[in-house]
Amino acid sequence: MADNKKMVEAITSMEEDFAKWYTDVVKKAELIDYSSVRGCVILRPYGYAIWENIQKWMDGAFKKTGHENVYMPMLIPESLLQKEKDHVEGFAPEVAWVTHGGNEKLAERLCVRPTSETLFCEHYAHVINSYRDLPKLYNQWCSVLRWEKTTRPFLRTMEFLWQEGHTMHETAEEAIAETEQMLNIYAQLCEKVLAVPVVKGKKTNKEKFAGALATYTIEAMMHDGKSLQAGTSHYFGDGFAKAFDIQFTGRDNTLQYPHQTSWGVSTRIIGAIIMTHGDNNGLVLPPQVAPIQVVIIPVAQHKEGVLEKAAELKERLSRFCRVKMDDSNNSPGWKYAEYEMKGVPLRLEIGPRDIEQNQCVLVSRDNREKTVVALDQLEAAIPQLLGQLHDRLYQKALENREKRTFTAHNMDEMIQAANGENGFIKAMWCGDLACEEAFKEKAGVTSRCMPFEQEHLDDVCACCGKPAKAMVYWGKAY
Amino acid sequence: MADNKKMVEAITSMEEDFAKWYTDVVKKAELIDYSSVRGCVILRPYGYAIWENIQKWMDGAFKKTGHENVYMPMLIPESLLQKEKDHVEGFAPEVAWVTHGGNEKLAERLCVRPTSETLFCEHYAHVINSYRDLPKLYNQWCSVLRWEKTTRPFLRTMEFLWQEGHTMHETAEEAIAETEQMLNIYAQLCEKVLAVPVVKGKKTNKEKFAGALATYTIEAMMHDGKSLQAGTSHYFGDGFAKAFDIQFTGRDNTLQYPHQTSWGVSTRIIGAIIMTHGDNNGLVLPPQVAPIQVVIIPVAQHKEGVLEKAAELKERLSRFCRVKMDDSNNSPGWKYAEYEMKGVPLRLEIGPRDIEQNQCVLVSRDNREKTVVALDQLEAAIPQLLGQLHDRLYQKALENREKRTFTAHNMDEMIQAANGENGFIKAMWCGDLACEEAFKEKAGVTSRCMPFEQEHLDDVCACCGKPAKAMVYWGKAY
Repeated sequence: MADNKKMVEAITSMEEDFAKWYTDVVKKAELIDYSSVRGCVILRPYGYAIWENIQKWMDGAFKKTGHENVYMPMLIPESLLQKEKDHVEGFAPEVAWVTHGGNEKLAERLCVRPTSETLFCEHYAHVINSYRDLPKLYNQWCSVLRWEKTTRPFLRTMEFLWQEGHTMHETAEEAIAETEQMLNIYAQLCEKVLAVPVVKGKKTNKEKFAGALATYTIEAMMHDGKSLQAGTSHYFGDGFAKAFDIQFTGRDNTLQYPHQTSWGVSTRIIGAIIMTHGDNNGLVLPPQVAPIQVVIIPVAQHKEGVLEKAAELKERLSRFCRVKMDDSNNSPGWKYAEYEMKGVPLRLEIGPRDIEQNQCVLVSRDNREKTVVALDQLEAAIPQLLGQLHDRLYQKALENREKRTFTAHNMDEMIQAANGENGFIKAMWCGDLACEEAFKEKAGVTSRCMPFEQEHLDDVCACCGKPAKAMVYWGKAY
Repeated sequence: MADNKKMVEAITSMEEDFAKWYTDVVKKAELIDYSSVRGCVILRPYGYAIWENIQKWMDGAFKKTGHENVYMPMLIPESLLQKEKDHVEGFAPEVAWVTHGGNEKLAERLCVRPTSETLFCEHYAHVINSYRDLPKLYNQWCSVLRWEKTTRPFLRTMEFLWQEGHTMHETAEEAIAETEQMLNIYAQLCEKVLAVPVVKGKKTNKEKFAGALATYTIEAMMHDGKSLQAGTSHYFGDGFAKAFDIQFTGRDNTLQYPHQTSWGVSTRIIGAIIMTHGDNNGLVLPPQVAPIQVVIIPVAQHKEGVLEKAAELKERLSRFCRVKMDDSNNSPGWKYAEYEMKGVPLRLEIGPRDIEQNQCVLVSRDNREKTVVALDQLEAAIPQLLGQLHDRLYQKALENREKRTFTAHNMDEMIQAANGENGFIKAMWCGDLACEEAFKEKAGVTSRCMPFEQEHLDDVCACCGKPAKAMVYWGKAY
């Protein structure tokens, strides 16, 4: 029998306490552990493996679109961070400062990178001289640190893993096209790989990245109706280029400033997976990034031939999917609960009677539906069942979002909607910061994005009644 | 024509100034750039791509041997670092300290990880309870920081990228077997992948890792006869386990301490590649990790059909090797020099006459030997030429090492050998620290390792004349 520490205990139900359900799941599915480093978590093998699968897909997509990986220092001198005014204002209050090296006090403080625009710019000033050197399409995989007061695993931690793309272009048009391309890649990751539907849009000035001219975002709705920003892409114009004196000789032989972008997705997206698909039995992982796609559970494994057959299946399945066979002494029921907690998409049960009939039972994690499959049909059946599971997860999440998307035509309706169940609230906006702040103050919602797919709900702003400039999705966010 | 900044300039010759040759190569082959962060370098796309290829091979080898990746925080509280006495003594003088988060002074200083034994141990104390939880075979890919006074790209930088494996075992025997297994994987990486011959051995107590009972090493000899430690593997016994109170219930139902290892290889190994294979025309890259294995140079590319043919070949070759086609306006001669500087193993030249005769010319980077190959034979010829190039690089490096391996029977011979050309000096040693220090003081050499393949040169120590315990390789090291 398993020792007590590993017994699968019940988790708090989502309906009772969504926040506690979330914390229970990340711990009990063995995604993370806490450490004595405040605000930082340990990514355990099962949690890190999800990130590796996400990385692999993204890295492939970046390389296919001509991007190259680099690595910049993790420390940034204070004077370098201060070169771009808006940027430093946004980040200085939330960085960690290195003040001593060995036993010596440093002449200049260094911050642990919260993001690397400044380092990339310094390097670009060295290597960009002519239009022939453009575009520069760089990406970096690394960890960054932001001194957060309250933290939650994946959603907000002081240190987190991410990729940060930083590119330089000859023209504004090319740079803007790059931000759109990368946002589309992020949306593809969410929808096609993680089964998480997203709304693509533009952030308001208030919500945009420090130093950016425009920030594009993909917003996903969690099971509880709150929004999660799953990836962002920024257009900087030539602001940093001017601050860092990056110039190139153009085709017309004049000196010009290049146009810049940056874009990033972090381990936060694992939080989105958990809160979009999980249920009261634990994690539900989208098949494409599940570290284990099929778990084989031998039934009555002490009987002759069962373990041999299970091992043979494992060997065979490993050629086309990520498979694990659990032949520990735990009971089948215990194992079912364990791998449900871990969100393994398919469970393959095989016992003496199945072997006799040359078949097995496949159970889908999300709906527990059982499919009896002839053993010689597994190569076709498993990818099909995994694909169907992905589609069901996506549809279910989309339905949740649609059910929780509301409309408000004025402040009263906004307040009423915001006091109801969480979700997106669509409302027209004049573009003024004052109205954005009024929505926050009176209804407790922030602007999530101005979606690319605009609807004309009214002619005027739902707050002030002045002419509306855009339809905005408002809501509560992680 | 190319702009002046990118013109390939001559580099300092190795014979004139090896250190300057090295710095010229890393800059001109575009492996690194300097930044305003003292002691840290930027890994540019070409340099980082070499690391990615090394990573990919290692990560595969680790996973095949049952290891799992995790991610630990980059910051370590001072109290945690201090838990193991020898360890903190070794590392405290060379760490960077974070003292402020945002605008607040921290109650406890945090160091940026110089290595992560302490964090792994803290986590292991949480997750190891029974012998069923063992072994734990974890690895981490990350960057670490050590506050170095003098730095050189790849060889010694304040921050560097590496992998650090940390494992826990039921018995000492299993842990020792793990250190040997990982050392063998490192040796395989060097010899079979990077064409760098290595000597496997054990470090003396003076040279071992802070907190380890035994450190195993692979030592490679650079072109200039100096030694470079290319990878290490440590056996810790249960010292850390006791300091961190990690205990498990054994098969006999008693509480026991597990036995620990750690092992690492860093971007330093790129320095070994450069200094083992490089020549006065620049880098020479071992084919298996070369970001570009074949560069196609169209000759007389303005003539009809040349660029089309080159593009067609690129498409074809990309199915079985990493290939680039350079159709820029630079002259073929300029391109030849550029890709020699970058160490690309094979250059494929194709011009109008070649096309007529349905052939091309393949030039090997190391010996500039030309091979005329029929176009329909490329699928066979390229892998063969790359394999031969690998073998030649390995042989040449091995010959250099053999030529530069000397023997000393007493201190006079040691001093004489150490004053000659650099290399390994084999000499017997009694095991006393005093003699090790005497060799350093009088001859300027340090112990590189006690090779696993021992030779019995004498009965007595070459320093003190007392009975010898081991043959040691002595030398100067990077």
